[in-house]
Amino acid sequence: MSERSFLGDMLNTLFERRRATSRVSDDRSIEEMCTSLLDAEGEVSGITLAQAIVHRYTRMSDADRLAFFRFLNDGLEIDLDALDAAITAYKTSGDARDYRTIATQAEPRRQELLRRLNQAPGATLALVNMRTDLLKAVKDEPDLARTDMDFQHLLRSWFNRGFLVLRQISWETPASILEKIVKYEAVHAIRDWEDLRRRLYPDDRRCFAFFHPAMPDEPLIFVEVALTQSVPESIQSVLTEDRETRRAHDTKVAVFYSISNCQAGLKGISFGNLLIKQVVAELRQELPGLETYVTLSPIPGLMAWIKEQDAPDYAAIREGAATPDEIRTAAVRYLLSAKTPDGAPRDPVARFHLGNGAQIYAVHGAADMSENGLRQSAGAMVNYEYDLNLIEQNHERFVQERAISKSPGFKGETAAAQKKRRIQA
Amino acid sequence: MSERSFLGDMLNTLFERRRATSRVSDDRSIEEMCTSLLDAEGEVSGITLAQAIVHRYTRMSDADRLAFFRFLNDGLEIDLDALDAAITAYKTSGDARDYRTIATQAEPRRQELLRRLNQAPGATLALVNMRTDLLKAVKDEPDLARTDMDFQHLLRSWFNRGFLVLRQISWETPASILEKIVKYEAVHAIRDWEDLRRRLYPDDRRCFAFFHPAMPDEPLIFVEVALTQSVPESIQSVLTEDRETRRAHDTKVAVFYSISNCQAGLKGISFGNLLIKQVVAELRQELPGLETYVTLSPIPGLMAWIKEQDAPDYAAIREGAATPDEIRTAAVRYLLSAKTPDGAPRDPVARFHLGNGAQIYAVHGAADMSENGLRQSAGAMVNYEYDLNLIEQNHERFVQERAISKSPGFKGETAAAQKKRRIQA
Amino acid sequence: MSERSFLGDMLNTLFERRRATSRVSDDRSIEEMCTSLLDAEGEVSGITLAQAIVHRYTRMSDADRLAFFRFLNDGLEIDLDALDAAITAYKTSGDARDYRTIATQAEPRRQELLRRLNQAPGATLALVNMRTDLLKAVKDEPDLARTDMDFQHLLRSWFNRGFLVLRQISWETPASILEKIVKYEAVHAIRDWEDLRRRLYPDDRRCFAFFHPAMPDEPLIFVEVALTQSVPESIQSVLTEDRETRRAHDTKVAVFYSISNCQAGLKGISFGNLLIKQVVAELRQELPGLETYVTLSPIPGLMAWIKEQDAPDYAAIREGAATPDEIRTAAVRYLLSAKTPDGAPRDPVARFHLGNGAQIYAVHGAADMSENGLRQSAGAMVNYEYDLNLIEQNHERFVQERAISKSPGFKGETAAAQKKRRIQA
Amino acid sequence: MSERSFLGDMLNTLFERRRATSRVSDDRSIEEMCTSLLDAEGEVSGITLAQAIVHRYTRMSDADRLAFFRFLNDGLEIDLDALDAAITAYKTSGDARDYRTIATQAEPRRQELLRRLNQAPGATLALVNMRTDLLKAVKDEPDLARTDMDFQHLLRSWFNRGFLVLRQISWETPASILEKIVKYEAVHAIRDWEDLRRRLYPDDRRCFAFFHPAMPDEPLIFVEVALTQSVPESIQSVLTEDRETRRAHDTKVAVFYSISNCQAGLKGISFGNLLIKQVVAELRQELPGLETYVTLSPIPGLMAWIKEQDAPDYAAIREGAATPDEIRTAAVRYLLSAKTPDGAPRDPVARFHLGNGAQIYAVHGAADMSENGLRQSAGAMVNYEYDLNLIEQNHERFVQERAISKSPGFKGETAAAQKKRRIQA
Repeated sequence: MSERSFLGDMLNTLFERRRATSRVSDDRSIEEMCTSLLDAEGEVSGITLAQAIVHRYTRMSDADRLAFFRFLNDGLEIDLDALDAAITAYKTSGDARDYRTIATQAEPRRQELLRRLNQAPGATLALVNMRTDLLKAVKDEPDLARTDMDFQHLLRSWFNRGFLVLRQISWETPASILEKIVKYEAVHAIRDWEDLRRRLYPDDRRCFAFFHPAMPDEPLIFVEVALTQSVPESIQSVLTEDRETRRAHDTKVAVFYSISNCQAGLKGISFGNLLIKQVVAELRQELPGLETYVTLSPIPGLMAWIKEQDAPDYAAIREGAATPDEIRTAAVRYLLSAKTPDGAPRDPVARFHLGNGAQIYAVHGAADMSENGLRQSAGAMVNYEYDLNLIEQNHERFVQERAISKSPGFKGETAAAQKKRRIQA
Repeated sequence: MSERSFLGDMLNTLFERRRATSRVSDDRSIEEMCTSLLDAEGEVSGITLAQAIVHRYTRMSDADRLAFFRFLNDGLEIDLDALDAAITAYKTSGDARDYRTIATQAEPRRQELLRRLNQAPGATLALVNMRTDLLKAVKDEPDLARTDMDFQHLLRSWFNRGFLVLRQISWETPASILEKIVKYEAVHAIRDWEDLRRRLYPDDRRCFAFFHPAMPDEPLIFVEVALTQSVPESIQSVLTEDRETRRAHDTKVAVFYSISNCQAGLKGISFGNLLIKQVVAELRQELPGLETYVTLSPIPGLMAWIKEQDAPDYAAIREGAATPDEIRTAAVRYLLSAKTPDGAPRDPVARFHLGNGAQIYAVHGAADMSENGLRQSAGAMVNYEYDLNLIEQNHERFVQERAISKSPGFKGETAAAQKKRRIQA
Repeated sequence: MSERSFLGDMLNTLFERRRATSRVSDDRSIEEMCTSLLDAEGEVSGITLAQAIVHRYTRMSDADRLAFFRFLNDGLEIDLDALDAAITAYKTSGDARDYRTIATQAEPRRQELLRRLNQAPGATLALVNMRTDLLKAVKDEPDLARTDMDFQHLLRSWFNRGFLVLRQISWETPASILEKIVKYEAVHAIRDWEDLRRRLYPDDRRCFAFFHPAMPDEPLIFVEVALTQSVPESIQSVLTEDRETRRAHDTKVAVFYSISNCQAGLKGISFGNLLIKQVVAELRQELPGLETYVTLSPIPGLMAWIKEQDAPDYAAIREGAATPDEIRTAAVRYLLSAKTPDGAPRDPVARFHLGNGAQIYAVHGAADMSENGLRQSAGAMVNYEYDLNLIEQNHERFVQERAISKSPGFKGETAAAQKKRRIQA
Repeated sequence: MSERSFLGDMLNTLFERRRATSRVSDDRSIEEMCTSLLDAEGEVSGITLAQAIVHRYTRMSDADRLAFFRFLNDGLEIDLDALDAAITAYKTSGDARDYRTIATQAEPRRQELLRRLNQAPGATLALVNMRTDLLKAVKDEPDLARTDMDFQHLLRSWFNRGFLVLRQISWETPASILEKIVKYEAVHAIRDWEDLRRRLYPDDRRCFAFFHPAMPDEPLIFVEVALTQSVPESIQSVLTEDRETRRAHDTKVAVFYSISNCQAGLKGISFGNLLIKQVVAELRQELPGLETYVTLSPIPGLMAWIKEQDAPDYAAIREGAATPDEIRTAAVRYLLSAKTPDGAPRDPVARFHLGNGAQIYAVHGAADMSENGLRQSAGAMVNYEYDLNLIEQNHERFVQERAISKSPGFKGETAAAQKKRRIQA
């Protein structure tokens, strides 16, 4: 339909803009340029200057970048005394203009600087990348965290869910986007284009990503989905090369087997929860025959936890001599009972999905026999189920009682294992 | 090219989202729903709740909306004492976490509420419209200006130039967009589709608009352009029905004869300056033969100023008995010498263009003989010239010295008029 | 999805091509140019020459065009003797090369000329328009029908159903296409853009058209659809301005109330049958709640037939004094019993729909009170029903037995009318 | 711009249609089905039947396909006697209706069958592929050439230049199209996606293809272009992996280094000439700095010709012991003097480019050291130049005088080589 296309075409400008190479030269230091940008009244020269600053930054050494971050952190800081004065003034007057002064004084000038930088073509991605650098710098200089808070505050506002766009990634997607999917896949590496094709082309495979209109070449996060007849018990069965393709309309289960964040500079701005739910909604509409939505997830903290345990039956796992069932039993125990100090699941992936309102569906030994899978979790994996009718309720119980929800058919530890554990205890 | 299309297609989701009718029902008051939205951890139920609030608002009476604004203004206000305490704590500790507390306390909770509301489908436009209501309410209850400051702060960040998209509006544009152009044209009304066609279809006519990806159906601002052989001296000559179309590639002058803001709710967030400059850049690239870029602008404050003047030669103008040349002379005088208390041009349109770096090119009597043109400016109009080489310099002089730049061939008052004025003075 | 877009973008080239103005000049006569084009080996200069010929034609007078058609008809005719010789040669040799000679000799050279002309940018539309002129000329000079046969033969091949594209026409469609819909509507005239909006914008209205990729600005045929609760009994009830819009998903009946062919030059190449069936398929998929697909059709031959009848009860109709029920009775009789010499329904619209496999659903008096409706059919209209399960069977019966199928609830003449008729007979 | 998009979107239907799996079953033989399709009046059941036939064909064995071709060739043949009678009738009557009978009788019914088959979704590609099979069958059964003539006749009409669409192939193109480029590259094989990326992504590389709207997934022919500073003397220098990318706007030469036809079933329908010229036009517009357009072409017939020569200095070449300069000299001699019986250049690639109006620019030894390059042409390659000002003139001279045009700086054989040859002669 044509309206879509009109909307669609809107982004052309952004696209063309990206291509424009900034070739602005400026003799001043980047700090002077930033000060000038902040002082500029109106926007007559603002965009050109913003462009020059962004361009300058991309060519700076790590040391110069650190100095620039220090400038942002210390040179463009809140003036606490001025803020104090503004509060006092407003307490006295109650005048909206004095209220405005509080807002102005309470916001460090670096926030306004970032907003003005963002006017330049392609600046949004540049600022995301700038934050990637900043996050590294914070490790050595923790007080830079103040500046990072301001980055995060603005990025969270700009990457508001209302501005994100969900796109299917398929074999019809431009190669320029696909090569980024290959690059960013963080869970089960994509070896080559053939491997990618196996994940995108067959009728029973799907991939979806969130994008932001101001950086349309860059996926923010993506999820890979397998459509199957039954809930899979291993990643091998999902990724095997010689499986037969099913017609999507004949499948019953949607398996989210890989979720990858793409932009380190958007750390702390969570898209995963939204992505899963929106993809569930998309798939439901396209494929009404789907009955179950599960993940096939790693248990990245399992081996570390096992190594801390004294119980003799973990020795076999540590030594690689345990049966899949023994490993499964340990994994169940870890997922259900290992906690952080504040009572949340210790495993970060468990925390993510259970916090989103998912419930544990099944745990499997010998499910990921890759080197990484064996090292992290002795090969164990877990399905978390997203049941749209229960998500809110599960989420509430999780937040309020730290309760872990389980799917009806979930098999915990076997009776034998439980008995053994009781005796040991 | 295919990438463009990929980018373009991104907005489909937004489009489809718009169509979704929100049919959420909730028994709580809108204030309770807002509080609940602010309390929600994570985003599990956030979007649904945001959608319900937006939907509720659109069906509320004016009185209920006012009550809602009062709730935002007073119920979600800064806690000055908590802010004071945070400042004191940070002064003592210097800890980044205490710094964060300042940022949190200094921001009224309504800002976070607006960000969360913005997650709902179509919410960006709903919030812009909400501000339109709020601006009306502020007139009666000036302290609501505090809430308006927060709206403006967020909208300015979201409608950052880096997120805007320039689109040409042509006879190929969907009717759904075109009917909005007809509706929003504020300077020279578009009578019907034939009139619209005359402004869009001929090869020597252009129209451009800014859009925001999150509200792709709604132009934010648009400008209408005529391509001509020479700088026009009246709007009649531009809009006449029986003129002959010129080939765009044979024209020398681009005339911006109408600029209209479309969204009352974006008041105070200026796009006009950027629009003109980006359209100049577009036209230069498409039509290298263009030599001059001018406006054909109204002088809306002229008659009001004339009515305040004592000088006898203005009587004729007031009585509608002046010659075009006499009116022109008065208009020149007004534009060059009538000032606001702080030294800026008194005429708002003059202030806008001169502040953008334009310069006065020519002034014409008998240039807009419409009822409105005669009432506001006795029929006088003015060309402001955008000379890309001089824009920054003009802008600087305007900001620093309040100097009004003139194009080389600008003819001020005639010698006779000047002499007469000297005698009178 | 991105592939769509890639496909979509393909047509850009065609679009840009259309814009290119042909400015080729050539001193030769158009006949010399055509001969040269036919002689050209390869295509080195062919496209330029084709473009020049097409361009020349568009600027020729009617007399010159007639001369050109005579040249096509007589100058580029089959050489019967050469064809005879080729047949004899092949009969003797049985050689495939001699077979090819038959094919070559049996085809008048004007066919190859038309194919070569078609290479020029925009030539397909130009050839369709050329045939419009030709069809007029054939009326005066019947032997030009030979040339028209060749036009029709090629156009039928080029406008093969496999090359046509169905598009929805909506309020989101570019104005440049919409103004053609207004222009081509042949059944119930569209008065202005407001009237057009009422037919496209509401959720319970649809419009679909066929296009050909080589002339993408020009609809070939379009149908207007109303989605209703029950089968409408008059066009007034469909087009009334103050009706309430229904949600499309709540409707049960799709009414095809207007079908218009757009290109006179494609006379004899039928798209209507295909259009209706493909639109039925589209609507079924989008709106599974639809149960009935009917037309609301004129009965253009009714009054002419009535005027030929002697029976006294038609006098009232002729004099405009009949009741709607009397008119309905006459219309039923006309539709069911008035035949062409070869036994087909005499009414052309009836012939079209019944031949497509539709069946008569209902006949209404006082159904089209427009001037045209009263003059042609005394205000009577008819619903033809497209029941996908019965289309083939109806079609077979119609072709083989000239049988007119009726929907189950169809009410023929009333008992009273039948009795009266028996008595009269 | 939105119209483009409207046009673009047109093809969606075609796309969706492709996806539709034909699941029609029919108990009849394919010959019976074809007869029924030819007999069908109107198109009520035609498309379904056409779809079933196409579907049946794709699942048939080679033997069954051959039987089907025999049926087309013999069962749907011209009736020579009926044709004779029609000619006689028309000679007598001169009536246009008798003329039509000639046209009908002179066309074998298989042509009408193919046109009706082409109505089915995706049938155009299916018919192209059917012809691929047919061309193989013709080798064994030469009289099937009659049927092939009809295929070729129709395909030539349907793949008329006016219906083709030029698209740039870039790194932004969908992977589904790119994998076909990899598959069809016939000159310099593309090893993997990295190799493909090197040919598409850099700013100084381009690729263009022709498509047909009815088979939008399938390139018909494509050309790969390198933008360089000077005319390259070897393919190695063009394809080397570690070259530096130049900015396209700084280049002076466009090198067409690979042209590949993609569809065996379109044999004899030439697109190459048009493609090169349209790509030259595109590049000229995008990059006005380009001064020279040349190919870098193989000389596929060189070694075969050398093996036929007696002269002693060819022995060294045959034995792989010749210097590049000796090989170059032999290649020049071959290109300029080796002729087919009718006087055209013996080398097929030379014939193609010179016939298109190109001229010989330069010949190089040691220019293609790949296994294939050495075997075919002892490593020699040649640049043909496309000079838009001379193309028509070159073409004319080639057609009329069999003259081979040379670029101004072309160096034929060296003086030494010429002298030596004179002595030998």
